[in-house]
Amino acid sequence: MPQIRILTEAELRQFVTLDVETIDAMEAAFAALATKAVAMPPIMRLDIPEHRGEVDVKTAYVPGLSGFAIKVSPGFFDNPKLGLPSVNGLMMLLSATTGLVEALFLDNGYLTDVRTAAAGAVAARHLARRDAATAASLGAGVQARLQLEALALVRPIRQARIWARDFARAERAAADLSATLGFPVTARVEAREAIEGADVVVTTTPSETPILLADWLRPGQHVTAMGSDAEHKNEIDPAAVARADLYVADSLKQTRRLGELHHAIAAGLVSPDTAFPELGAIVAGLAAGRTSPDAITIADLTGTGVQDTAIATLAHARAGDRGTPFAT
Amino acid sequence: MPQIRILTEAELRQFVTLDVETIDAMEAAFAALATKAVAMPPIMRLDIPEHRGEVDVKTAYVPGLSGFAIKVSPGFFDNPKLGLPSVNGLMMLLSATTGLVEALFLDNGYLTDVRTAAAGAVAARHLARRDAATAASLGAGVQARLQLEALALVRPIRQARIWARDFARAERAAADLSATLGFPVTARVEAREAIEGADVVVTTTPSETPILLADWLRPGQHVTAMGSDAEHKNEIDPAAVARADLYVADSLKQTRRLGELHHAIAAGLVSPDTAFPELGAIVAGLAAGRTSPDAITIADLTGTGVQDTAIATLAHARAGDRGTPFAT
Repeated sequence: MPQIRILTEAELRQFVTLDVETIDAMEAAFAALATKAVAMPPIMRLDIPEHRGEVDVKTAYVPGLSGFAIKVSPGFFDNPKLGLPSVNGLMMLLSATTGLVEALFLDNGYLTDVRTAAAGAVAARHLARRDAATAASLGAGVQARLQLEALALVRPIRQARIWARDFARAERAAADLSATLGFPVTARVEAREAIEGADVVVTTTPSETPILLADWLRPGQHVTAMGSDAEHKNEIDPAAVARADLYVADSLKQTRRLGELHHAIAAGLVSPDTAFPELGAIVAGLAAGRTSPDAITIADLTGTGVQDTAIATLAHARAGDRGTPFAT
Repeated sequence: MPQIRILTEAELRQFVTLDVETIDAMEAAFAALATKAVAMPPIMRLDIPEHRGEVDVKTAYVPGLSGFAIKVSPGFFDNPKLGLPSVNGLMMLLSATTGLVEALFLDNGYLTDVRTAAAGAVAARHLARRDAATAASLGAGVQARLQLEALALVRPIRQARIWARDFARAERAAADLSATLGFPVTARVEAREAIEGADVVVTTTPSETPILLADWLRPGQHVTAMGSDAEHKNEIDPAAVARADLYVADSLKQTRRLGELHHAIAAGLVSPDTAFPELGAIVAGLAAGRTSPDAITIADLTGTGVQDTAIATLAHARAGDRGTPFAT
């Protein structure tokens, strides 16, 4: 009798953590995307404008992994009025051999948070200066914390700045993170101030207008933009994408349609068929990452199905006997 | 604390049945597709050729329904060698207001079987002669039984024939169905024999080459083709599609790409932009169904997300307190 193992967010939080093994798993997923016959269909998207709702479904099969994830990510932006979080959802892990559902992760987006931050660390490993010591986050939400935590695992971060449109929110996040991350985190009133002198900048907002301007960037800086996962989102000045020494996509097919690149193409600053390198190709050594300490680099992360398959596989392996077995 | 209600196939079989209410729910779903601002993204498809596996994900939001389904349908065709069924999968029902998962139906494809048969009944209601008394199924699997059962709910069926490539299989199915359906069902050696004199023909196979030829069709016959849900499947002679008095799609966008229509277009017999009516438009009275007792009609059913949302909504309503509540 087939069994499905069901794990809740509270259970998953106990053993799926942002650590070097998680980052390595994410790195391997990107390498697979560049080197293996990965099957990754376009993201499925359903919009429910009446309730300011949207649902994304992602999946990817990575040859060599015993399972593949299908992830359902709803975002309903009127939920806070009802006392509910905007983002929830679940992941399922299916056997790549039989298609049977092996595990259901009722994670409310937690695994996505972890794999998104881990991807930021992978980008920083290959694109930020080795001596990067100062980090900045534009945005003060869950990803601000996780991205800073992830950066500190791969670069010798000694201080960080946080900016948010709402300064009080940035201050609260900074105080909180200073207490838990092990290095000082300060809030800044202006985004420009926050990134001045930062070696690594991560943009972690759902902004629909650029919050980081091209003129602000200085030689040696690396920017990871992880907020844009839909056509209307835009964190980075299109001119910055056009002028960077190195622009890297998680999936060029996706960033041309959904990412920061899409806005640079729409602005006529970049040709739609420019063959920018993908992060996986850099990880796999098929394309160069940072080649000079003075280069300005940008990683455009829209989120990929291979990351979901990687984190679900990790969660399944670490789960062992945890969770609730459910006989079907 | 949000709760998800989990129902297994065995539980669902107790109260989700093929009955007139189910057919009416399916009819309403098709009408909604024609008349409301339904959001139904293209089917997501993942192929895993190493294991002869494929996964389809379908969804649709129907304004007015409180929830929407996301369905995951894996088909892994080497499973029987492992003693497992080829088809499994699950459906989830999400709140259209909050995106929260309300129910998980671990149905192994059972709800899909029911909604597919119910769609066949909807097609027959609008396209088969009112006095249709003889039915035929090309194919002897689960859908052969369900489609005949569904037809008998909407037309005065008094006898049926079954054909399958494997005659012994057709004989077994015929004996079994004669005992349970309440009218005689006989097996036929040739497909042509099976459809001769049949008022309604349903094709229920995964065939990749036509099993029903254009020359066999006679005035007054209605054909529902429900086997083709992928590019390579083809049950109906493309010439039959071209020559029918009325060709109806469940979703024209889908049948142009996946259905019998796709093969007629590929053969150059039908223009790719011919505006055939959809079943929902006929149900809603926006297009004509059968207008003459002598017309040859064809319904091309590829399976739509609105059907999944309709059956999941029905299952949820009928479930009441059944199943296992799972606190997340």
